Amino acid sequence: MKIKPLGDRVLVEPLKEEEVKKGGIIIPDTAKEKPQEGVVVALGTGKLDDDGKVVPFNVKKGDTVLMPKYGGTEVKMGGKEYQIMREDDILAVIG
Amino acid sequence: MKIKPLGDRVLVEPLKEEEVKKGGIIIPDTAKEKPQEGVVVALGTGKLDDDGKVVPFNVKKGDTVLMPKYGGTEVKMGGKEYQIMREDDILAVIG
Amino acid sequence: MKIKPLGDRVLVEPLKEEEVKKGGIIIPDTAKEKPQEGVVVALGTGKLDDDGKVVPFNVKKGDTVLMPKYGGTEVKMGGKEYQIMREDDILAVIG
Amino acid sequence: MKIKPLGDRVLVEPLKEEEVKKGGIIIPDTAKEKPQEGVVVALGTGKLDDDGKVVPFNVKKGDTVLMPKYGGTEVKMGGKEYQIMREDDILAVIG
Amino acid sequence: MKIKPLGDRVLVEPLKEEEVKKGGIIIPDTAKEKPQEGVVVALGTGKLDDDGKVVPFNVKKGDTVLMPKYGGTEVKMGGKEYQIMREDDILAVIG
Amino acid sequence: MKIKPLGDRVLVEPLKEEEVKKGGIIIPDTAKEKPQEGVVVALGTGKLDDDGKVVPFNVKKGDTVLMPKYGGTEVKMGGKEYQIMREDDILAVIG
Amino acid sequence: MKIKPLGDRVLVEPLKEEEVKKGGIIIPDTAKEKPQEGVVVALGTGKLDDDGKVVPFNVKKGDTVLMPKYGGTEVKMGGKEYQIMREDDILAVIG
Repeated sequence: MKIKPLGDRVLVEPLKEEEVKKGGIIIPDTAKEKPQEGVVVALGTGKLDDDGKVVPFNVKKGDTVLMPKYGGTEVKMGGKEYQIMREDDILAVIG
Repeated sequence: MKIKPLGDRVLVEPLKEEEVKKGGIIIPDTAKEKPQEGVVVALGTGKLDDDGKVVPFNVKKGDTVLMPKYGGTEVKMGGKEYQIMREDDILAVIG
Repeated sequence: MKIKPLGDRVLVEPLKEEEVKKGGIIIPDTAKEKPQEGVVVALGTGKLDDDGKVVPFNVKKGDTVLMPKYGGTEVKMGGKEYQIMREDDILAVIG
Repeated sequence: MKIKPLGDRVLVEPLKEEEVKKGGIIIPDTAKEKPQEGVVVALGTGKLDDDGKVVPFNVKKGDTVLMPKYGGTEVKMGGKEYQIMREDDILAVIG
Repeated sequence: MKIKPLGDRVLVEPLKEEEVKKGGIIIPDTAKEKPQEGVVVALGTGKLDDDGKVVPFNVKKGDTVLMPKYGGTEVKMGGKEYQIMREDDILAVIG
Repeated sequence: MKIKPLGDRVLVEPLKEEEVKKGGIIIPDTAKEKPQEGVVVALGTGKLDDDGKVVPFNVKKGDTVLMPKYGGTEVKMGGKEYQIMREDDILAVIG
Repeated sequence: MKIKPLGDRVLVEPLKEEEVKKGGIIIPDTAKEKPQEGVVVALGTGKLDDDGKVVPFNVKKGDTVLMPKYGGTEVKMGGKEYQIMREDDILAVIG
């Protein structure tokens, strides 16, 4: 079973705290808008520009990304949790 | 009797909980914006782009989709419940 | 006496409950945004696109449509009630 | 003394209740957004489209129109009351 | 000393009540959005359209206009009061 | 040390009350949106139009301008106070 | 480990108060919207214009910038604090 996000949405699997690498990015507890790390699992069908052409994604499958904690929709599949969110809500690629 | 949605709307028949396949997608009870599964029953007349051409749909009749629970308008026909919603509100195709 | 709606508006005559056909569409009482059925009586002068051309309507005179109950403006003429509403607010054509 | 509305505005003289023809349009007292009848007295200078061309009006001087009661600005001139409103706020031409 | 408004703004000198001509326009006290009369004293530098060309003004220096009472910014110069407001907020030219 | 504003922002040094010339512009205490005078100290990098070309500024270095009192961001440099604000928020050039 | 911001976002390292040069910019305590200084550490992938071309950034790596204190998202990496924010929220380049 697969999830194909629609439009400019992507499917992201949030990383559990124990998976976040040592010496990696730490989100301060005092941060106003708390981001979290995740891995891109699937890209959407793509947004169309004014000429009807598909706008390419800036992220790709397998990218580790920094995303807002409450920016997407949570779904669960095969025992794993995912987030479906618009690509523009992703803050950065970590690598 | 048929329902032809207008513009970029689609007609979706929500799946009852007993129809959701085992090992499928589970929506956590704690999810902020609770999505549900459904099957696309009819596509709309299509949205027009700036050049007056019909923008093709990303979903097709028969697709199982993930959609927000309160994103559409409920109607009942022949004893069945449906939702009429804009395609952009559909989160993903499941397959 | 005739009413010619302006722009992308249409004139719709709501169907009384006894006129709604048996086996037809039933709007659940629990529906959040309650739609109702009606018949298109007149199309507007049409909306202009960016090139100044009239955008054609997706509905036509005589169509039975599903529309939000409080999406238009009520008027009464010759003892009958009508709604003037923008075409984009019409949910679907029933046929 | 004359009033020349600016842009896509028009000058409308509301009809008094005794002027509304028999068998004409009746606005139900229960109507959520109460419209009233009026006669177009002057068209504005016109709105410009993206190419800088004046968009033609859909109404003309002398048209009887249906308009929202509180959609314009009231002015009084030579003992008569008028409304200055944007053409897009006019619901329909009656004829 | 001169004031040159920026963009689509104009400088208007409101007429005092004793300057408003007899038989002229009367603003009813019950008017929801009370307009007032004024004389255009200076035009702005002009708004640019999508092609970078200056959009011409519909009003000119010396025009008597009808404007909303609280639509602009009050300034005082040489003992006189003025309003700086966007041209689109001016309702009509009176002549 | 220099401040180069970004985009359509400008750097303005507000005039102190004793610097405002006699017979100049007086802002009434009763003004709803109180403007103040200032001198343009630096222009921004410029806003880009739809074709990617820089839109020229309507103000230039050295211009005395009328601006809303709370429309910008205050900064202090070398003992002087400045405001960084978008050019569209400047009301007029005084000269 | 690197952070590559997405779209028109940039990664900025805020300067600590002891790093702010003498005779430099002082933000008054009474400032309504308090800005702070920082150094641009990484540019994003860039925003696309209507023709699908990447819009160039106005800031570059190493620029000292003036930015609103609460305009971005805080992240911590290798013991240092950063802000991810959209370039349009940066007020000025200092140099």
